Amino acid sequence: MNKLIVFQSDFGLVDGAVSAMHGVANVVDDSLKIFDLTHDIPQYSIWDASYRLYQTTEYWPRGTVFVSVVDPGVGSKRLSVVAETVDGHFIVTPDNGTLTHMKKYVGLKEVREIDETKHRREDTEYSYTFHGRDVYSYTGARLAAGVITFDQVGPLLEPKVMLLELTPGRIENDVLYGAVAGGVGRLGNVAFNIDRQLFKDFNVSLGEQCKVAIKNQQEVVWEGEIPYVRTFGEVPVGDLLLFVNSSGFMSIAINQGNFASTYGIKAGKNWIVEIAKLP
Amino acid sequence: MNKLIVFQSDFGLVDGAVSAMHGVANVVDDSLKIFDLTHDIPQYSIWDASYRLYQTTEYWPRGTVFVSVVDPGVGSKRLSVVAETVDGHFIVTPDNGTLTHMKKYVGLKEVREIDETKHRREDTEYSYTFHGRDVYSYTGARLAAGVITFDQVGPLLEPKVMLLELTPGRIENDVLYGAVAGGVGRLGNVAFNIDRQLFKDFNVSLGEQCKVAIKNQQEVVWEGEIPYVRTFGEVPVGDLLLFVNSSGFMSIAINQGNFASTYGIKAGKNWIVEIAKLP
Amino acid sequence: MNKLIVFQSDFGLVDGAVSAMHGVANVVDDSLKIFDLTHDIPQYSIWDASYRLYQTTEYWPRGTVFVSVVDPGVGSKRLSVVAETVDGHFIVTPDNGTLTHMKKYVGLKEVREIDETKHRREDTEYSYTFHGRDVYSYTGARLAAGVITFDQVGPLLEPKVMLLELTPGRIENDVLYGAVAGGVGRLGNVAFNIDRQLFKDFNVSLGEQCKVAIKNQQEVVWEGEIPYVRTFGEVPVGDLLLFVNSSGFMSIAINQGNFASTYGIKAGKNWIVEIAKLP
Repeated sequence: MNKLIVFQSDFGLVDGAVSAMHGVANVVDDSLKIFDLTHDIPQYSIWDASYRLYQTTEYWPRGTVFVSVVDPGVGSKRLSVVAETVDGHFIVTPDNGTLTHMKKYVGLKEVREIDETKHRREDTEYSYTFHGRDVYSYTGARLAAGVITFDQVGPLLEPKVMLLELTPGRIENDVLYGAVAGGVGRLGNVAFNIDRQLFKDFNVSLGEQCKVAIKNQQEVVWEGEIPYVRTFGEVPVGDLLLFVNSSGFMSIAINQGNFASTYGIKAGKNWIVEIAKLP
Repeated sequence: MNKLIVFQSDFGLVDGAVSAMHGVANVVDDSLKIFDLTHDIPQYSIWDASYRLYQTTEYWPRGTVFVSVVDPGVGSKRLSVVAETVDGHFIVTPDNGTLTHMKKYVGLKEVREIDETKHRREDTEYSYTFHGRDVYSYTGARLAAGVITFDQVGPLLEPKVMLLELTPGRIENDVLYGAVAGGVGRLGNVAFNIDRQLFKDFNVSLGEQCKVAIKNQQEVVWEGEIPYVRTFGEVPVGDLLLFVNSSGFMSIAINQGNFASTYGIKAGKNWIVEIAKLP
Repeated sequence: MNKLIVFQSDFGLVDGAVSAMHGVANVVDDSLKIFDLTHDIPQYSIWDASYRLYQTTEYWPRGTVFVSVVDPGVGSKRLSVVAETVDGHFIVTPDNGTLTHMKKYVGLKEVREIDETKHRREDTEYSYTFHGRDVYSYTGARLAAGVITFDQVGPLLEPKVMLLELTPGRIENDVLYGAVAGGVGRLGNVAFNIDRQLFKDFNVSLGEQCKVAIKNQQEVVWEGEIPYVRTFGEVPVGDLLLFVNSSGFMSIAINQGNFASTYGIKAGKNWIVEIAKLP
């Protein structure tokens, strides 16, 4: 193990919850190298937790342990698991759909159920509400530190992990359909579940204008023509662009502006994009 | 020393103040392991600083140094101190009440006054406004790095540290009274100054409904019946629950909701809870 | 090299962009000591990025590498550079004005253009929008890790770096004129481009009242009398003070209040301060 551990949650940073998780990891091994992905996942949004892992893990060294705690079902019957991805990363998480994007776009090699009778902090039998601290941080730290092996986490999960519905974009009657792929970041760029390959199949040339409509359910929220370009600097300041973002998904942005906040675009599966070529 | 140092402040992270403190610590010893508890303590709220330390320190290894800078009195006559807790943690802070919860709930072994003629960065005689950088980070880092011992910080503080008023909950005429124990985190759960033992004395069974009123001074802001359960998953999504939180205090939450923002509950000593058993 | 690397951007922390940069640095060398200055630079504000570096770098050890990514021109012809400051820090940044304050107030020893044919992550030829990850983090990490020397970054930049307009304060007809020096932090103190020396030349004694007006363009937003003092505790709670801030600039604050939010003061070159001595 490389001793790298990366935390993600929806706890925010205004209280001591994240620091308690960091502390637990340091008690396990104070030579761990501890990082945070984000703790601003929208409250209880398993979808965003899943997408952010996909957006991030590939840039980290093999062997890095990710601990993701968006856990609306804490205290219910949901399982706790550790997944090993095909790329050699480990993800410690409640089994609630957080592994959806990783399974579809990267692949999971094995998933093991955490045996919570063995793998939890001592004397936490009266702690029912903060498994992030008492189970996930503790187990992730022990795995990252090499105190336990992946095999020792617990038995292989049968039959399989929980998955959220994840529909890829599609081409139909010369229209390219997609939905918002994940949460909207601070800069307001909006990414869709249309990957580079699907867009290539749609056969738009660099510089070509496309007719784009963004709908919230049936209602058109924005429509207009946008050029497909490689990057921001290729359009004037204030203009829109259609581009392949840094994770490989088709995206819309305003050069030096904020597309999402300017037009009130939000994330979620009801937010649809339709792209057509000009006649 | 284990070389762990954890910072807390009300500076926020939008400017360079926190990074300046990190830099000062690295100049002292760049093998220190530097963490942040939170920098989003409500502006000038010594109460929250005190509570967040209590919420967090116990999960960190013995010997960890906490530097807490919520310092509305910077430049006044308030002292600067380092406390050693009964649990073996060190807290570097202005002596302004920040040690209140630690003293009451954990215990302070010794408190030493920082001799600022010795323990401040060189050439900071014209710096009157940022003791977080020039005194607290510097002294905390030197203590964590083993450059100075706790004894070398300065003389034992006589007679005692400044304390905020801290009234525990109480049972009176079959009603359990309490106040909001600390700040409200991002998830909106509200914790009261009623610990597990006091609630046990009140003798409510798991699953039992309680009549609960939350008041801002005299005005009732929310009232209703809430079941006492162990964890979120034991009530339907959207329902309220009364539970012992992960720091051992009685709390109210909405399962997958945000209790504080939904009902406008805020932190502060004017926010009172009254809990009664059903007839 | 001391293996310290400090990141700054306008990406925010709600998505995985910053963590991707951290990951890239760890792939280069997982013994780097990675820190964040801030990722809440106002969107696309090169001015603030420049000021925050100035506010912070001096407190870090010589040899520390700063990676600053406020990059509205990503994908345009703007260059990428690494600057070595007179103080021995390195700054990796797009050449878009981010080095303005460092050049004026600290001094740049040498600036080298990053040869992007050599210094970018492998297989990023289809990545046009996230040079923070693919060029700046990668190159900064390799420099901090000693994988490359400063000389190997690329050729010396000729003729010189891009600079924003930066007008210092001035004294004219017994009035001291200045503008807001940089962004406003969480505590709401406002700093002006009037340094300690210029204020000394203006010859105000400690405790003396000054007549102060703050204007947005021509419109007076606040005016009144404020005492020049050393620190917050020297005025009553709620009163204003004029003081030399911890970076050496004249500033106005409210003791235990928030000057900027109370009076709607914002940052920017249109925000002017005029200080006069009382008759």
